[in-house]
Amino acid sequence: QRARDLDIKIGVIPTGKKNAITDVAGVKVGHTTLVKGDSVRTGVTAILPHGGNIFQQKVPAAVYVGNGFGKLAGTTQVEELGNIETPIILTNTLDVATGMNAVIQYSLGLEGNEEVHSVNAVVGETNDGYLNDIRGQHVQIPDVISAIEKAAEDNTEEGNIGAGTGTVAFGFKGGIGTSSRKLPESLGGYTIGVMVQSNFGGNLQIDGAPIGEELGRYPFNDKLMQSADGSCMIVVATNAPLDSRNLKRLAKRAFMGLAKTGGIASNGSGDYVIAFSTAEENRIPYEIKSEILETKNVPNRLMSPIFMAAIEATEEAILNSLFMAETSTGFQGHTIKAIPMEKVLPVLRKYQVIPE
Amino acid sequence: QRARDLDIKIGVIPTGKKNAITDVAGVKVGHTTLVKGDSVRTGVTAILPHGGNIFQQKVPAAVYVGNGFGKLAGTTQVEELGNIETPIILTNTLDVATGMNAVIQYSLGLEGNEEVHSVNAVVGETNDGYLNDIRGQHVQIPDVISAIEKAAEDNTEEGNIGAGTGTVAFGFKGGIGTSSRKLPESLGGYTIGVMVQSNFGGNLQIDGAPIGEELGRYPFNDKLMQSADGSCMIVVATNAPLDSRNLKRLAKRAFMGLAKTGGIASNGSGDYVIAFSTAEENRIPYEIKSEILETKNVPNRLMSPIFMAAIEATEEAILNSLFMAETSTGFQGHTIKAIPMEKVLPVLRKYQVIPE
Amino acid sequence: QRARDLDIKIGVIPTGKKNAITDVAGVKVGHTTLVKGDSVRTGVTAILPHGGNIFQQKVPAAVYVGNGFGKLAGTTQVEELGNIETPIILTNTLDVATGMNAVIQYSLGLEGNEEVHSVNAVVGETNDGYLNDIRGQHVQIPDVISAIEKAAEDNTEEGNIGAGTGTVAFGFKGGIGTSSRKLPESLGGYTIGVMVQSNFGGNLQIDGAPIGEELGRYPFNDKLMQSADGSCMIVVATNAPLDSRNLKRLAKRAFMGLAKTGGIASNGSGDYVIAFSTAEENRIPYEIKSEILETKNVPNRLMSPIFMAAIEATEEAILNSLFMAETSTGFQGHTIKAIPMEKVLPVLRKYQVIPE
Amino acid sequence: QRARDLDIKIGVIPTGKKNAITDVAGVKVGHTTLVKGDSVRTGVTAILPHGGNIFQQKVPAAVYVGNGFGKLAGTTQVEELGNIETPIILTNTLDVATGMNAVIQYSLGLEGNEEVHSVNAVVGETNDGYLNDIRGQHVQIPDVISAIEKAAEDNTEEGNIGAGTGTVAFGFKGGIGTSSRKLPESLGGYTIGVMVQSNFGGNLQIDGAPIGEELGRYPFNDKLMQSADGSCMIVVATNAPLDSRNLKRLAKRAFMGLAKTGGIASNGSGDYVIAFSTAEENRIPYEIKSEILETKNVPNRLMSPIFMAAIEATEEAILNSLFMAETSTGFQGHTIKAIPMEKVLPVLRKYQVIPE
Repeated sequence: QRARDLDIKIGVIPTGKKNAITDVAGVKVGHTTLVKGDSVRTGVTAILPHGGNIFQQKVPAAVYVGNGFGKLAGTTQVEELGNIETPIILTNTLDVATGMNAVIQYSLGLEGNEEVHSVNAVVGETNDGYLNDIRGQHVQIPDVISAIEKAAEDNTEEGNIGAGTGTVAFGFKGGIGTSSRKLPESLGGYTIGVMVQSNFGGNLQIDGAPIGEELGRYPFNDKLMQSADGSCMIVVATNAPLDSRNLKRLAKRAFMGLAKTGGIASNGSGDYVIAFSTAEENRIPYEIKSEILETKNVPNRLMSPIFMAAIEATEEAILNSLFMAETSTGFQGHTIKAIPMEKVLPVLRKYQVIPE
Repeated sequence: QRARDLDIKIGVIPTGKKNAITDVAGVKVGHTTLVKGDSVRTGVTAILPHGGNIFQQKVPAAVYVGNGFGKLAGTTQVEELGNIETPIILTNTLDVATGMNAVIQYSLGLEGNEEVHSVNAVVGETNDGYLNDIRGQHVQIPDVISAIEKAAEDNTEEGNIGAGTGTVAFGFKGGIGTSSRKLPESLGGYTIGVMVQSNFGGNLQIDGAPIGEELGRYPFNDKLMQSADGSCMIVVATNAPLDSRNLKRLAKRAFMGLAKTGGIASNGSGDYVIAFSTAEENRIPYEIKSEILETKNVPNRLMSPIFMAAIEATEEAILNSLFMAETSTGFQGHTIKAIPMEKVLPVLRKYQVIPE
Repeated sequence: QRARDLDIKIGVIPTGKKNAITDVAGVKVGHTTLVKGDSVRTGVTAILPHGGNIFQQKVPAAVYVGNGFGKLAGTTQVEELGNIETPIILTNTLDVATGMNAVIQYSLGLEGNEEVHSVNAVVGETNDGYLNDIRGQHVQIPDVISAIEKAAEDNTEEGNIGAGTGTVAFGFKGGIGTSSRKLPESLGGYTIGVMVQSNFGGNLQIDGAPIGEELGRYPFNDKLMQSADGSCMIVVATNAPLDSRNLKRLAKRAFMGLAKTGGIASNGSGDYVIAFSTAEENRIPYEIKSEILETKNVPNRLMSPIFMAAIEATEEAILNSLFMAETSTGFQGHTIKAIPMEKVLPVLRKYQVIPE
Repeated sequence: QRARDLDIKIGVIPTGKKNAITDVAGVKVGHTTLVKGDSVRTGVTAILPHGGNIFQQKVPAAVYVGNGFGKLAGTTQVEELGNIETPIILTNTLDVATGMNAVIQYSLGLEGNEEVHSVNAVVGETNDGYLNDIRGQHVQIPDVISAIEKAAEDNTEEGNIGAGTGTVAFGFKGGIGTSSRKLPESLGGYTIGVMVQSNFGGNLQIDGAPIGEELGRYPFNDKLMQSADGSCMIVVATNAPLDSRNLKRLAKRAFMGLAKTGGIASNGSGDYVIAFSTAEENRIPYEIKSEILETKNVPNRLMSPIFMAAIEATEEAILNSLFMAETSTGFQGHTIKAIPMEKVLPVLRKYQVIPE
């Protein structure tokens, strides 16, 4: 069950229809889940800013580095040029290069890209090496292509799927989570959608309730919880017309949502936020015919509600990733249990997060 | 009453003795409070990394820009050289320059600085223009010097003092707040102290309890709360021997503590974190006699507990700034009320933040 | 004589009419020169992006930090919001705060700004403490206001004026220099203007000719030239419609022009580039009436000629600052000689920079 | 012939013995050159900071992004942690992912790394798609491993080898180039070595002589030279004990050396500098046994000569890459000629760069 199904309401802004990143019109999501034998527990998640040829119709974008102990590919070009030109891929740490090769081959193969010689693949990761034989590098190029090709506008899957298959968060099974917010028309009416690959640690709070403390599971508490390492990839999509500067500011706010779950961005965490705008009027064509690019952007002054929406949706997406994940056993017999709802629900009731 | 006096316990790490930034040995704090007539509600807060000649014995330091709609002076040199060479001054937005001039004159006048031709004053601010006649620029150089000279190691004042005299947070009276954490010896035994000048908005949460929502006061809720603008200055001190790179990472974590109070880093917010290390072995002498500077630093791997301490102490310092502030009337008859404890305490009880 | 008057031609792109930053239509420049008694050799230079109320009609802008050992005020807000809202002031290191106070008072006093509570003063500096009694802080607020008020579109003054009154470059008298480039219509037809306050060291090259080596004056050569410290402020104006991201890229290129003169951005150098666009269609009004800001920008693809123009104009502006400066004696009887043309011209002829 | 063989002397600091990056003790370089049939003109260059297990003994490092239109992998982790833990690989744009996979497999396979689950591969590139069938992605994992394994301390190869096999600079054949500087003992005695993969455009100057102009080949001059796009990877090694902050500053200076050759960092250029220190006392062990890392670093004050050395060595390394490259014909019959010495030498003589 998702957070909302449990009556957990994060923040004050209404969700989008599906309460998912795919509430942002045109955004497509696809997953390839790799569960093989005893040791392979990994996968690939693809997030497409739109359904067309992204290389030919780039989208304004930005990356915020929460904690850079990670391998997210493509960051410097996104920063320099202010756009993304490929599907965004999430996978495990040691298969980033495979993800890049797949994105390159996918991009080179698209109609209209016959003369393209350069592709900036944006591929993020978290380390699923506790449940997954990560050293085996089990993701193959077709797995990535498949996630891209399966991507759909109605995808709302969460938990142990795609890049979230083998991840661990707060000592529980993590995974893919998503959420969205739809601002009222008076605040612009924009939709902000978030998808996370949760694989990090900290002192878990659920809508403010101190789950980590109540369950005695928080960083440095004992040997099992010695480390809060891990990582979190966060992708923020919005139909608000934002330039790369304001997208970077937006990305920074998503990281504040992570903080609200109790994440501490530990030393070993690779925490990144990728934000993009789907606004069609601001697409950046590969072949620019005119000498001037006209854009229509939300001014700085009106950004705050959009910021707040990203904070709320990120917090909720992380919670969804926990609630929707299931116990998993993998590499070397390691087992990570799903968050124990039988223990969590009483705490949530005690702290009035949900009705008694 | 401070948060702890109300039985509110933020996080899991023990506080320092005074639960204040001055728990970090050698750190001194001083305030000049300017309350004059109907319209002057402002002041100056000085934080000294140590009691000596800071210019001659610089401290490793870093700045993190949470949201750069602010005028913090001195940032580029701190970033480039990795150190701070003056007292840190906090004041109001339009008196930053006066703060700088005071710091320059103070520094030039110190024994041993007779030949100094360059001083990098670190002066932060938030905008107290609702309660204070900020356009009047009422801070004078002697006010700043006085805050520096009064600075003491046992200072634990909070609320409507110094740079917090006229600030507003979450629609209530904000001000100066402080808190600290002392890590157990097994995690290094270091002390991390935080001081804030709270003047920002958002959807207030107190140790997870949704005060903003319960009181119906959150951004964009109605006209009174239309804006969450404002700012927050956060200063983090630690005796952990950290280089400027890890101090920058630490500063970033403090910002996560702000997120946990419900702050949203709105467009108009100037949110900055200044972090420094007091470790004597890493002081940077102005006149370097040897060709090599030996330093002893905490390695990356052992940073996570220090990060967590900064998150907790920042969250608590912000709460203290609210709890210790008092209703104030100032410029143009504007009144900002202290946080209404009679309404807040029942909510805190309801949400089990404090015992019933 | 300016470089062009000596037949020195930097690069391949034609200059603007005046070969000055004021070739960018609307840009105004004014100087206050302070030469008093034996010891005061300093001043103020004001650069106005346009002749109107800049606070009400902000211009897209960016700052590039070449070497951050300096006190340039206003950087974080320019970076965050992507604009400049005041005249740009250059002065000496210890009078930055006075410059800020003057800009604040000037801005608060403009018609239409009666309710303004926050001003981001952009004030840069270099250290003229060898020729000037810098510790005396001789710049007063009226000196700054005067530079702003005197600013004119036809100003082309160079050398020992304004903020360049007491500066030293490559061991010779430095100062204010300016230059511009006008791209052919086929490359956009834009004008790029540069103004520098030169006060830095290195191994001087003039259009490639090794002046430093031929004259035996280069860093670490002997005791007199032990240090290459100092600083350089560079301001780049263009009528090309550029957003803050591309202005930051443009600013970075200006720094490449400094490199071509032999500057080494030594440890003690505070080297900054401020870039802004005067394009009227992209002004950012303080009071935004619509919910969308329409902008028209040069696309990434067409930036290269603009980059090249900034490199050339910066190199030439620095040379002009040297050629136009005059021998000066000041603080403690220190004398800095103008670049010795009687020695330089033969070297330039030998290296075919100018005809024999 | 290298620049020095032609009597071209860049700057004033003496070179190291080999005038190569391998003058920095312990640094190893290896190349795999792929010239196959009509269309494959590419390769791999490996630069090893030391001969041991780099993952277990990381080196302090930093990256400077000159212009981020490129795909350099590994940047955010280098920035966050301040170190490099693998060989540095250079190759072509579309084979970065293959380079990463090779580095990962190489690192996982080293003795002592059996439990390693995360590897931050640092792989840079330039686009050799004019001479090379880049879309064919012809680099294979063994090609990369081979470059690493062949790496030797006495390698001084330049020109059309390794990652420079198919590159183009200033419209001429570019490639690999290297140079070094050895500071006098009075300035620290350190060695600074640079290696470049030159593939960029601009208005070529050789030790100040305007080759581009004299040969009529400069950006925007005519259709053949319409574009100055391309890229430059620069690697700086030094035995000076520098922390990551000062290595980042050093990296920025190398970019100034590029500027002196006439490079303009055009929009399409991916210009990056990677800098690392080989100082053994500052290695960062993967398994840290103590709670404190002791380091010995050059203080800020003494950095300037090291900066100057990096500028000079970079300029010379780029020139060497041009002088040592040979005419090459490749993909689709494209031919890029070596720089025409018969035309260049007279110009160099005319401008007194070399004796007549």
